[in-house]
Amino acid sequence: MGSRQHVRDIQNGPPLHYASDIRAYKKEYAEALDAQDPLRSFRDEFIIPSKKDLKRKTLAAEESSEASDPKSIYFCGNSLGVQPRSTQRYIEKYLRAWATKGVTGHFVPHEDELLPPFVDVDTAGSKLMAPVVGALQSEVAVMGTLTANLHLLMASFYRPTKEKFKIILEGKAFPSDHYAVESQLRHHNFDPKEGMVLVEPENLDKPTLSTEQIIKVIDENASSTALVLLSAVQFYTGQYFDIERITAHAHSKDILIGWDCAHAAGNVDLRLHDWNVDFAAWCNYKYINSGPGGMAGLFVHERHGRVDEKQPDSNETFRPRLSGWWGSDLATRFNMENRFTPQVGAAGFQLSNPSVLDITAVVASLEIFNRATMDEIRKKSVNITGYLEHLLTKYPLDAPAESKPFTLITPSNPAERGAQLSIRLQPGLLDRVLHTLEEHGVVIDERKPDVVRVAPAPLYNTYTEVWEFCQIFLQACEEAVKAR
Amino acid sequence: MGSRQHVRDIQNGPPLHYASDIRAYKKEYAEALDAQDPLRSFRDEFIIPSKKDLKRKTLAAEESSEASDPKSIYFCGNSLGVQPRSTQRYIEKYLRAWATKGVTGHFVPHEDELLPPFVDVDTAGSKLMAPVVGALQSEVAVMGTLTANLHLLMASFYRPTKEKFKIILEGKAFPSDHYAVESQLRHHNFDPKEGMVLVEPENLDKPTLSTEQIIKVIDENASSTALVLLSAVQFYTGQYFDIERITAHAHSKDILIGWDCAHAAGNVDLRLHDWNVDFAAWCNYKYINSGPGGMAGLFVHERHGRVDEKQPDSNETFRPRLSGWWGSDLATRFNMENRFTPQVGAAGFQLSNPSVLDITAVVASLEIFNRATMDEIRKKSVNITGYLEHLLTKYPLDAPAESKPFTLITPSNPAERGAQLSIRLQPGLLDRVLHTLEEHGVVIDERKPDVVRVAPAPLYNTYTEVWEFCQIFLQACEEAVKAR
Ligand SMILES: Cc1ncc(COP(=O)(O)O)c(C=O)c1O
Ligand SMILES: Cc1ncc(COP(=O)(O)O)c(C=O)c1O
Repeated sequence: MGSRQHVRDIQNGPPLHYASDIRAYKKEYAEALDAQDPLRSFRDEFIIPSKKDLKRKTLAAEESSEASDPKSIYFCGNSLGVQPRSTQRYIEKYLRAWATKGVTGHFVPHEDELLPPFVDVDTAGSKLMAPVVGALQSEVAVMGTLTANLHLLMASFYRPTKEKFKIILEGKAFPSDHYAVESQLRHHNFDPKEGMVLVEPENLDKPTLSTEQIIKVIDENASSTALVLLSAVQFYTGQYFDIERITAHAHSKDILIGWDCAHAAGNVDLRLHDWNVDFAAWCNYKYINSGPGGMAGLFVHERHGRVDEKQPDSNETFRPRLSGWWGSDLATRFNMENRFTPQVGAAGFQLSNPSVLDITAVVASLEIFNRATMDEIRKKSVNITGYLEHLLTKYPLDAPAESKPFTLITPSNPAERGAQLSIRLQPGLLDRVLHTLEEHGVVIDERKPDVVRVAPAPLYNTYTEVWEFCQIFLQACEEAVKAR
Repeated sequence: MGSRQHVRDIQNGPPLHYASDIRAYKKEYAEALDAQDPLRSFRDEFIIPSKKDLKRKTLAAEESSEASDPKSIYFCGNSLGVQPRSTQRYIEKYLRAWATKGVTGHFVPHEDELLPPFVDVDTAGSKLMAPVVGALQSEVAVMGTLTANLHLLMASFYRPTKEKFKIILEGKAFPSDHYAVESQLRHHNFDPKEGMVLVEPENLDKPTLSTEQIIKVIDENASSTALVLLSAVQFYTGQYFDIERITAHAHSKDILIGWDCAHAAGNVDLRLHDWNVDFAAWCNYKYINSGPGGMAGLFVHERHGRVDEKQPDSNETFRPRLSGWWGSDLATRFNMENRFTPQVGAAGFQLSNPSVLDITAVVASLEIFNRATMDEIRKKSVNITGYLEHLLTKYPLDAPAESKPFTLITPSNPAERGAQLSIRLQPGLLDRVLHTLEEHGVVIDERKPDVVRVAPAPLYNTYTEVWEFCQIFLQACEEAVKAR
């Protein structure tokens, strides 16, 4: 009796961790997690496409009330985040400022503005960006695009010599990073075949890379390597690398290291400053919901952004870089005197006056992140992605492991991944599974021939969606297997 | 009697050219020019700030009808163009596409869309951009920012050797171009003092540069120069250089030449293709009214954009460049195979997926340009700026030339200038003149200590505004002289 009472207590009590709660496979459990989620109110700050939206052939709104249309299950924030409700309001204010003030909008503030005058929007951006990536404000700039920023940063941080010229990167780096590195080598007249050191997975069935392996490759090439460029979270596997340890190791070999944080910014709790990262760049259209192609960000560690000390091999007091007027000292920017002294920090890497429209969308989104904290966001992320993994691998309870026609290629250790799980389907299932998911209004993305990437975004996705997704996905797999 | 009748005929007849019409100094004359201006209806496509707008301390709209508020005289399109009315509609559609479709918006078209799906907006941009700068569609890309584009282009077109490494540019180049060139030289380990050849005005009172002088500097440095980088229309003097002749001359000395078209695009009738220009870059926030910092453009001549012939000093079939995935061949872009083959033409210089928001604003504006033609726009521009010059220098009819406390530093030959006139005031007058102009709701910009830049934009400015401006400006000068 005592033990039955105990079971009843648990069954009526608050949800335990999914690993030890026998109710975890029930929708009510997911709903209970949502009810006690400290971030739950943030979902209302975003526009989640409805299932109807995804099927409509027009953009124009329809008569019927849309608020009540069932929402899609949007697990694709790793590719393109959804739109904050505030974005439109921010943009309307911007349009109004431009329309009513014209060029005077560069300097004239307004009582009811959401952003400072045009010349200061970059500062507003870096202020909100810094805490999201664990940086000092002076270490970040909201500017440009990801691949362009990687090139600008390499122009400063990749200064090869005949002896030390190699760049270490992932064998399965995102194509743009691969091309960027390849063309940087060519730019300096090195043969990419000699200069690109690709860290390849040791086992194709397990395409992740261990820290040891990366460190080994660094060691093997230490004397000839000028730069390591890795992604913080791997786009394909979802693996979150040990940035701190790898960075320290590169430094111990006198090698600079940069991180592509496209899949990490707004996803995991980066500490770029504390980890001594030399430089980093990212886009803001994934977990940081700024819209397709939206303005990007970059990080330059404090110690590289100084404008005071004589530089090695140069008469300048600042790190060499490709320069533009927007990076020059604010006090003299408009003097037209053609003497370049950069602003301290990442701002000194700016080239052009930024698109105020574009940065406005970034700021609208960052303002939401600044009302939560990356700490809280990451905490929910670990839990919601863990729950997703749990349901995918442990449910139905009585299903033999072999009956699951997929494996997870993302590390199962939460410290080694972000929001995303990459699921590899058995051959021949992908198209049919995708079709079923789409029919049910599930938005995820695929990497042909056999991987789907699924990413619950902690700011707007719910545990209940995770539960529903698993129902649909497991059924889709079952049907696909049958039809094979 | 016959001759009096003749005078009366003229006085009642249609306006003649301002140089030979005795009524040119009268407001009715200006109004008559407006009435017969074939571009007059375009003014309605733009939001001109009202005088009240410029003074209000809030962005929020006021109760009172705004359409009837007197407009400012906005002659500052050389710095920041005004907002097309259509911009907001375009952006709303974009926001709706992102909100309702999320990531599927990259590929899914809509019946009522103004722009194609996200992945194709760059093509929509280049199509509309090409005729504005006199290029083939394949020769232009809407991307990045001006200074960043200059760097990317120099990475491809500035390949210095020990012998041939100099860059020729204006002594009074826009600071960003100066910094860009300086840092490119440093990037290649050259001393800017040796590598930057500055074409300086021979006479400080006349800061324009003759074609002969530029050609002379090219000749003097021919054997050691790798690149010429000039502005097409000079930001300070308003001078429009003889691009065709200077380009041909540089080529005759085996020197590549690029043009910064910031003040030329949408202003003068460029023929970048026909003139054999190697490369060019520009911003779209001045005469092409895309908003502060809005996405920029670049041009790469057809012969440099080929992807077929073996390149000198390289195993590749394309011109070396800093690369990114958005420049790679469309057929394989999403294959993640890490083999870079660029798209043919300027698109092959793209790095990143472009901000759809930002490019949307550019396209909204370009659509207007494509309903006029640069030919017509330039025709009106020559006439309206000529009229401005005429009124400034010839009016009042009885004023002795010495009584005008200013000189024009912009060339008086219409073929050597665009919309802008740069007016140099006598010492000590600037602040007071600016104050009076501002009081009267005139928006122009100044270059301290003594220059104002005045640019009637042919798409939205009127002859009557020119007339009114001159009234105000001449009076402002008179008052400033008295108060001196
Ligand atoms: C001639 C010229 N070049 C370069 C620039 C710099 O432009 P951006 O800040 O867009 O790079 C400007 C800006 O006004 C300019 O007028
Ligand atoms: C890891 C990574 N690097 C680079 C890129 C390229 O980004 P962009 O097109 O913004 O330069 C992406 C785009 O998804 C990415 O995921």
